[in-house]
Amino acid sequence: MTHTSFVNDRYANAPGSPIRELKRFTELPGMISLAGGYPAPELMDSGGLQKIFSSLSGTAFASALEYGGTEGAIALRTELARLSSSRGNAVEPGEVLTLSGSQQGIDLLARTLLSQGDTVLVEAPTYPAAISAFRFAGAAIHQVATDDEGLVLEDLERALIRLKPKVLYTVPTFGNPSGRTLSEGRRRELLKLAVRHQCLVIEDDPYGDLWFDQAPPPSIYSMRNTVDGAERVVAYLSSLSKTLAPGLRLGWMLGPAELRRACVLAKQTDDMHASTLTQAAAAAYLAQGLFSENLPRLRATYGKRAKALARALSLQLGKRIEFTAPGGGMFVWGRAPGVDTAEWLKAAIERSVLFVPGSAFYAQDADHSTFRLSFASQDEAGIATGVSRLEEALRAL
Amino acid sequence: MTHTSFVNDRYANAPGSPIRELKRFTELPGMISLAGGYPAPELMDSGGLQKIFSSLSGTAFASALEYGGTEGAIALRTELARLSSSRGNAVEPGEVLTLSGSQQGIDLLARTLLSQGDTVLVEAPTYPAAISAFRFAGAAIHQVATDDEGLVLEDLERALIRLKPKVLYTVPTFGNPSGRTLSEGRRRELLKLAVRHQCLVIEDDPYGDLWFDQAPPPSIYSMRNTVDGAERVVAYLSSLSKTLAPGLRLGWMLGPAELRRACVLAKQTDDMHASTLTQAAAAAYLAQGLFSENLPRLRATYGKRAKALARALSLQLGKRIEFTAPGGGMFVWGRAPGVDTAEWLKAAIERSVLFVPGSAFYAQDADHSTFRLSFASQDEAGIATGVSRLEEALRAL
Repeated sequence: MTHTSFVNDRYANAPGSPIRELKRFTELPGMISLAGGYPAPELMDSGGLQKIFSSLSGTAFASALEYGGTEGAIALRTELARLSSSRGNAVEPGEVLTLSGSQQGIDLLARTLLSQGDTVLVEAPTYPAAISAFRFAGAAIHQVATDDEGLVLEDLERALIRLKPKVLYTVPTFGNPSGRTLSEGRRRELLKLAVRHQCLVIEDDPYGDLWFDQAPPPSIYSMRNTVDGAERVVAYLSSLSKTLAPGLRLGWMLGPAELRRACVLAKQTDDMHASTLTQAAAAAYLAQGLFSENLPRLRATYGKRAKALARALSLQLGKRIEFTAPGGGMFVWGRAPGVDTAEWLKAAIERSVLFVPGSAFYAQDADHSTFRLSFASQDEAGIATGVSRLEEALRAL
Repeated sequence: MTHTSFVNDRYANAPGSPIRELKRFTELPGMISLAGGYPAPELMDSGGLQKIFSSLSGTAFASALEYGGTEGAIALRTELARLSSSRGNAVEPGEVLTLSGSQQGIDLLARTLLSQGDTVLVEAPTYPAAISAFRFAGAAIHQVATDDEGLVLEDLERALIRLKPKVLYTVPTFGNPSGRTLSEGRRRELLKLAVRHQCLVIEDDPYGDLWFDQAPPPSIYSMRNTVDGAERVVAYLSSLSKTLAPGLRLGWMLGPAELRRACVLAKQTDDMHASTLTQAAAAAYLAQGLFSENLPRLRATYGKRAKALARALSLQLGKRIEFTAPGGGMFVWGRAPGVDTAEWLKAAIERSVLFVPGSAFYAQDADHSTFRLSFASQDEAGIATGVSRLEEALRAL
C-alpha cells in the first residue's frame, strides 16, 4: 500500500519560523542573542504579577478557572479600552476583542477575510509570521517598498490599482523588523488610499508603547474618523506581550463590528477564548496601575540599550554597514553591502552571537545583505560584546 | 460608494455556536441550566490551584512569563505523557503537542489536513464546534449513523467507499452529545476500515477520565499498534478543561509526527503557544499528584448526578421521552417523539430551565425531536427541580 501524506499542500512543505529555529542556539553557554524580539526577563514585573495571583480572592480565582466568553472577560476589556483610549484609540469595552496574543489577530483576520487567490500587501521588509498566516489562508503576497518614513505611498498606490488587494498589513510604529515609523502625514494619506481602493488595513501595533524620547504619531486607527469611510477599513491589533509578559498570551483587536464578529466565530472553533485566569490577572494588574508604573522603566531601559547598540554599531561596523537608529520598539534594521548575512550569521554563531539575517523578512526578492538586531534582551555590556563579536565574524568572512 | 463586506463567504453568514448563544440565559435569576457542558465550579480544586501559583519559586514564576516553545513546556508535556501512558496511550513527552484546549486541536487538524471540497465524516449526532471548524476549512460534512454502541460500522464503510473522506471525526467515549461509548470490538474494526480506506481518524476524548462505575474501553489511539498501518491514521485529542479547569485553556494532541509538525506550523501563526503560566501551574499540579487525588471526587459526583437525572427523567418524563443513561461524561441524549424540542426549549426558558435542542448537533437532516441534557453543573436537588420544570414545559406545549 502506498501512503500519501494527510497534510494539505499549504502546510506540507511550509518552512518553520526562521526566528523560532534560532531559539535553540540561544541556550548554548555564553551565547549573546541579538535575534528574537523577546522582552527582557529582568524588566517584567514578575514579583508584582505573582502577588496578583495570591491576592485574587478565592471567589475571583475560582471564577477565573471557568469557561469565559470568546470576546474576553469584561474586567480585562474595560482595562484594555481604558489603555487604548489613553493612547488616542477611544473605544468602549464592548468594542475590544481579547486575543491570545496579537499574533492570533493576524491569523483570525487572515482566515475570515481572505479566500484562495486574494492579494495581501505587506511592507518590505515585514514580520515573517504574518507572511505565513496570509500564505496559509491561500493569499498571494505582494511587497510594497519602504523608506525611512515607512511605506512609500506611490508604490502602495500603484499596487492598489494594479493588484486590487483585499488587505494591507503594516507595523507602522517601530516596525518589526525595520524599527521604522510611518510619518503622520503618510498615515492620513494611507487611510485615504485604503478608502478609495477599499483595501482593509491591518495595523499591527505591539511596540507603540515602547517609545524612547518622544511618543510616536497617533495610530492609523485613531485617525479613522478624520477620513470619510475610513472607520470601515482599519483593524488594529496590540499586545501585552512586549509590555507586560508574553507568557500570559494576551492581545486585543479593535475594528469594525463585522470583522470582530467574524473573528469571534473563528476563535470559537479555535481556542474558544484566552485563558480566563491570565485575563483576570492582567485585568487586576492594569486596574491597580502597576502597568503604567512599570512602563517608564521599560522605555528608559530599552532606550538606553537601543542607543548603546547604535553607538557600538557606528563605532565598530560603521564602515561596513548602514542602519538607522530607531525611536522605540526592539529592533535595529541594517544592511551590510556586499555581504550575505546568512554567511555572516554562521560565522557569528561560531563566535557566540546571534542575529537574524534579513531574508526571512521578505515575501519575495529578499535583500540578502540585510539583517535585524534586537537590543531588547541584552544589557549594555552584552550589547557591546555582541557587536564586537559581530565585527570579528564579519572580518572573518 | 457601495460597500461590500470584507469578510469572506465562509464566515460572512456562519451562525454562532448555539450552545454559547444559550449562555446569556444562564445568568437569569433562578435559572437551572442543563445546557452547557461546563464542569461544576464547586468540583474544581480552586484552592489547590491558587496555592500552586503562590508556591512557584520566583525563578519558576518569572520564566513562566516568557515566550515558550510552540509544542509546550517540557514539564507539562512530561506530565501529560505520564497521564496518557497511565490511560494506555503510551507516549514520550516529545510526542505530546500541547494545545490551548482540545478544541484547538480540531481546528489545527482541520486547517492543516483539509482542502476545499474534501469530505469529513462525523457521527450523527456530533459536537457542533467540530462541524463549524470543518466547514470553515472548506470541507463537506457527511453524517454516519450511530446506535447504542456508537458508530454503525456498516454505514461508516458505505460512506468510506462512496465518499472517500479524508477525515473521520469521532468522540467515541461518553460522546458529546450522545453520552454513548463505542464498543471495543467496533474500535478495532473502525481502525481496520480507516487503514483500508486511508481515512484519518480524529479521536476526540475530553470525557474519557470521567467514568462512573467502570473504565471505558481502551482508546482507539491506544490500539494503533494492533492493526497494521494504523499508527499513521489516528490523531488523539484530550483536555484538562473537564477534569482540571477550562480557564487554563490546556489540552493536548497525540498522533503521527507529520500531523503534529503541520499543527505546530499552524499554531505558530495562531497563538504561538499555550500560556506558559497556566502550563507551569498545571504541570506542578499534576506533578504533585493533586490531579489524581481530585479525579475520584469528580467521578463520584458526576456519577451521582447522572443517576439522579436518569431517575428523574424516568419518573417524570418516562412516557414522553426515550434516553439512555450514560456510563460517564456529562451528557444525557434523548428523544421526545412528536415534539419539536426548539419549542420545548422556549417553554422551558419561561419556567427557568435550560437545555439544548438536538438539532444543533446534526450536520444535516436534523432530528428535531432530540435534545441534550447536561447533569454536570447542577446538584441533585437542582436536577430534580430542573426535570420537574421540563415536565411542566412539555405539558404546556
